[in-house]
Amino acid sequence: MPNFSGKKRVLTGITTSGTPHLGNYVGAIRPAILASESESNNAYFFLADYHALIKTQNPHLVHQSTLEVAATWLALGLDTEKVTFYRQSDIPEIQELTWFLSCMTAKGLMNRAHAYKHAVQGNIDIGEDEDFAISMGLFGYPILMAADILMFNAHEVPVGRDQVQHVEMARDIAQRFNYRFGKHFVLPKAEVDRDASLLRGLDGRKMSKSYNNSIPLFLSEKQLKKSINRIKTNLLEPGESKDPDSSTVFHIWRAFASRQQIEEMREKFEQGIGWGEAKKQLFHLINTKLESPRERYYELLKNPERVEFILNKGAQKARAESKIMIEDLRDAVGIRPLS
Amino acid sequence: MPNFSGKKRVLTGITTSGTPHLGNYVGAIRPAILASESESNNAYFFLADYHALIKTQNPHLVHQSTLEVAATWLALGLDTEKVTFYRQSDIPEIQELTWFLSCMTAKGLMNRAHAYKHAVQGNIDIGEDEDFAISMGLFGYPILMAADILMFNAHEVPVGRDQVQHVEMARDIAQRFNYRFGKHFVLPKAEVDRDASLLRGLDGRKMSKSYNNSIPLFLSEKQLKKSINRIKTNLLEPGESKDPDSSTVFHIWRAFASRQQIEEMREKFEQGIGWGEAKKQLFHLINTKLESPRERYYELLKNPERVEFILNKGAQKARAESKIMIEDLRDAVGIRPLS
Repeated sequence: MPNFSGKKRVLTGITTSGTPHLGNYVGAIRPAILASESESNNAYFFLADYHALIKTQNPHLVHQSTLEVAATWLALGLDTEKVTFYRQSDIPEIQELTWFLSCMTAKGLMNRAHAYKHAVQGNIDIGEDEDFAISMGLFGYPILMAADILMFNAHEVPVGRDQVQHVEMARDIAQRFNYRFGKHFVLPKAEVDRDASLLRGLDGRKMSKSYNNSIPLFLSEKQLKKSINRIKTNLLEPGESKDPDSSTVFHIWRAFASRQQIEEMREKFEQGIGWGEAKKQLFHLINTKLESPRERYYELLKNPERVEFILNKGAQKARAESKIMIEDLRDAVGIRPLS
Repeated sequence: MPNFSGKKRVLTGITTSGTPHLGNYVGAIRPAILASESESNNAYFFLADYHALIKTQNPHLVHQSTLEVAATWLALGLDTEKVTFYRQSDIPEIQELTWFLSCMTAKGLMNRAHAYKHAVQGNIDIGEDEDFAISMGLFGYPILMAADILMFNAHEVPVGRDQVQHVEMARDIAQRFNYRFGKHFVLPKAEVDRDASLLRGLDGRKMSKSYNNSIPLFLSEKQLKKSINRIKTNLLEPGESKDPDSSTVFHIWRAFASRQQIEEMREKFEQGIGWGEAKKQLFHLINTKLESPRERYYELLKNPERVEFILNKGAQKARAESKIMIEDLRDAVGIRPLS
């Protein structure tokens, strides 16, 4: 089994089919960057642009999102000297491994994938054919995801609850491959952050692009202010005591404030702070945190060649491992030079 | 649309999961080599080792078969200066294209593939779960086959009847891609040889490894003689007139003999040639045709580095096209450098 070091390898993929919002930041980016700073981890971060192709057939969106997602992580301080930060499509070994794994994966396993079953149920509900509008990319993507994970022998994959099953599938597939061809893969584990901060969006539901309630991470100051002003509140007037725990404004405040700031704001709510004032303070809090990253972000967007350069360096680092791994796997399945 | 030349591009894949037999030679190899000599064609031949992984998880078999199949084609006179002869797994662009196509292929299309439906019916017949022992490799392989074909924009794909549907699927997928992302692909056509010589095996059924009735192409002289002696005949004695048209010996004779030799043997049958004598003549006929190729074949098996060298040269030739093609396709779907 190649590329085994003493450190725990933790792998995170980010699909490049959108623009990061505050919810992504609080729920995924911030904790991931924090974890990557631990000395006991070897962290892998990749831009999952192959996965993006399942979700969109808009080439501009894929391309722009790749730039935005990369610039976001870099602007927020991801240390690319320490972690391995790469674009999935720069690692040709991943698609080859996907094929090797496809030949080891029972179709029945994919039939049971939640994401697929969910799509089928949706079709049945509207009276359509079961597989209506379901592509082979969508049906088979747990295998691509398994290849992403197994290529770098990740021990741990931090995911949301909805992705746990897919990591378990990667584990199953790895086990089957190991059983047939010898021990090549670490068996990966999903790591679900139980306290995962799901940030609420403008309307109080979970912040999500699909709910159209999200606040993009790097809005301009002016737009950020505007966006925060749109957070749904109740009709209580200034001076009337407000319940912090049911308030979206307070909920978002918590995600960015220090413990002390949280307590202070809780008091202000009880003392009847006006919604306008609370939002103003929330804006200042978030804006202060994001000011410098935002500057770095727009600087990177203006200089995409810098991002490209960093990704190329990351690809070299990643391929130093994936090339060795794939040679080993090719040999195992019988694809090797004739002499 | 890149790599378009005036010539018709004809593409043939050979799965490397077995040893070529006389039936393969008569039905596929001989006509393909003949066709490749036409000046109006650009012929592509590839060793389909990724496809082999669907059929076998025996690495030794895949590796050995790759050598044997390559050596067979070379020994039989395939002109690798003229044609493009490569090993599928040497072209990493093929798996990437497979993914692009997967994202454009309806799962419903794969549900309707004959090979898959046949496997499902087999499971139902024995009371098993529909997808029992069906891998994602088997389920999705028409997409890999589409990538094989579309990567080199083949106009024509000579196939057996059972593969026609898969070429039509490649055509459907290409059409869909072209519609969404602009015209990148030629729409390929299946070419079924209507006179395709299906050679009968030892027991009179179609020669096939799975019937265990085949005569390997490059048996030693002694083994070839032995094998031919095992061809099933009836109990008619020497001197008794025999029906050539129902005889497997005569059937195989036809596949190797000149028109004149066929007429002569027909007469001998009517005049009551003995089975022993007929088989002796059949052995001499085949042996004469295969003598020099057989020598070249064993020479190549003893020098696998020569085969490897030829395949590497072929890969370079093929990749000169596939690299340009994939850059074009990546750009189309939105996977392109950030700057």
